[in-house]
Amino acid sequence: MSKVQEYFDYILPLILEAGKILIKADEIDVQFKDSHVWDLVTIYDKKVEEILIDKIKQKYPDHRHIGEEETEIGKIKPILTDDPTWIIDPIDGTANFTRNLPITAISVGLIVNKEQVLGIVYNPFMNELFTALKGNGAYLNGKRIFTSGCKDISTSVMNYEISIARRNEYSYNQYLFRLKRLIKVVQGLRSMGCPVLSLCYVACGRTDAYQCDGLYPWDAAAGTLIVREAGGHVTDSSGKEFDLMDPNYLAAATKELSDEYMKIERVADEERLRQTK
Amino acid sequence: MSKVQEYFDYILPLILEAGKILIKADEIDVQFKDSHVWDLVTIYDKKVEEILIDKIKQKYPDHRHIGEEETEIGKIKPILTDDPTWIIDPIDGTANFTRNLPITAISVGLIVNKEQVLGIVYNPFMNELFTALKGNGAYLNGKRIFTSGCKDISTSVMNYEISIARRNEYSYNQYLFRLKRLIKVVQGLRSMGCPVLSLCYVACGRTDAYQCDGLYPWDAAAGTLIVREAGGHVTDSSGKEFDLMDPNYLAAATKELSDEYMKIERVADEERLRQTK
Repeated sequence: MSKVQEYFDYILPLILEAGKILIKADEIDVQFKDSHVWDLVTIYDKKVEEILIDKIKQKYPDHRHIGEEETEIGKIKPILTDDPTWIIDPIDGTANFTRNLPITAISVGLIVNKEQVLGIVYNPFMNELFTALKGNGAYLNGKRIFTSGCKDISTSVMNYEISIARRNEYSYNQYLFRLKRLIKVVQGLRSMGCPVLSLCYVACGRTDAYQCDGLYPWDAAAGTLIVREAGGHVTDSSGKEFDLMDPNYLAAATKELSDEYMKIERVADEERLRQTK
Repeated sequence: MSKVQEYFDYILPLILEAGKILIKADEIDVQFKDSHVWDLVTIYDKKVEEILIDKIKQKYPDHRHIGEEETEIGKIKPILTDDPTWIIDPIDGTANFTRNLPITAISVGLIVNKEQVLGIVYNPFMNELFTALKGNGAYLNGKRIFTSGCKDISTSVMNYEISIARRNEYSYNQYLFRLKRLIKVVQGLRSMGCPVLSLCYVACGRTDAYQCDGLYPWDAAAGTLIVREAGGHVTDSSGKEFDLMDPNYLAAATKELSDEYMKIERVADEERLRQTK
């Protein structure tokens, strides 16, 4: 049994257990992070992260870990070394979670020698478990999944996170300039408020693409591996090389579809630069 | 037992049965309606509508019915009389349905003397049944539901159907002018591709508002009753009186919240009129 398979077998039951905590959450105490009113954090967010990190520390004391709560609270800038590093988002889609909108998930990725080797995304409310080990394909509840294979933008359903446009003036303009061109060429648009699950929806063909800019490692570590293992293509939506530590991702069913989106977004970005000088 | 309760008891098991057909749908044959590439229709859409209408005809031969497939195929303009009239959407969110994105539902409303008296929305994939009888509250799987009660736009999550902007130049401009103002004032935005279920999500507090313009009676007949019976407010987003036969709806958790959205949208609409002359 490979080391990665061993890690997978150890972490999976812990994630399923953490999912039960979320389901039992009857009353949710909401805190607000700084001025980002939309970026909700709950006590359950902290609870899940603590459980997972504590258990990893017990079993693998030499492993590193990067987590949303820990990193933000401790103001630690995440740096990737060659050591096995767990990257955890205890609850992605916290705003959905606090409202009982069942589009929310736990995300756990493992990076070894700076390479993504394991990805698990679990939505306990819909009992959907997305998993991938590098080189072994992607799975939903144990069944192999593949992207839609869509190459034609005119028949594509794109999931593009609107709320990101609220961050600042730059994100606002970037989003709107792109959206007004994308609306005209795609078949449909969605926006669901849960990046890690939205990546998995590309992996299993529920949408043909997902885009979100200005994210964090824990939004990308598991889901982007799952997309690639399902046959999809992940790129940095700005055109630069994809960086797991500073991700702007466009995940698409195929490279061809990704290229179509990128072409339109470059035109939109140039238009924005001209008009917002 | 009231007549309406009798109708409810008759139709409910038929809807649950129709839901099973959708779950069993392994392979979906997709047809395209005219040039509206995004408006998918499936054989299951027709199957569900036929079952429900046939059974209603058998039991209540004097009742009328208005359905998406039937109306569009027959080019019959829906007119509401005082007779009991069933308004059916066999599958709302067909694009989601064909992609196995489990945000899709069967919607059945009953109108008597031009008044909405019964609404049922069923998502078989998440086993969620939303129901309402006029004057008796709204329910999710038998448990009473209420809107979030949100009155403050800055803490609100709004669900606003983007894909509607693809319809024509007017819808495109209307949506974009409104969106660019709304993004700045709400906490978050969603877009899910299933109007009838999106209404129910307002009813149970998963989002604080849902808006979609240029819809049909079958998109509104059940869900708008469910929102109102959960304490929410439904209005025509253009400012004119809400018309079930020609609905543009803004469904909000409260009247106060609805007024906030309407204020912003009127400003956006005026800006659009000035700039697109």
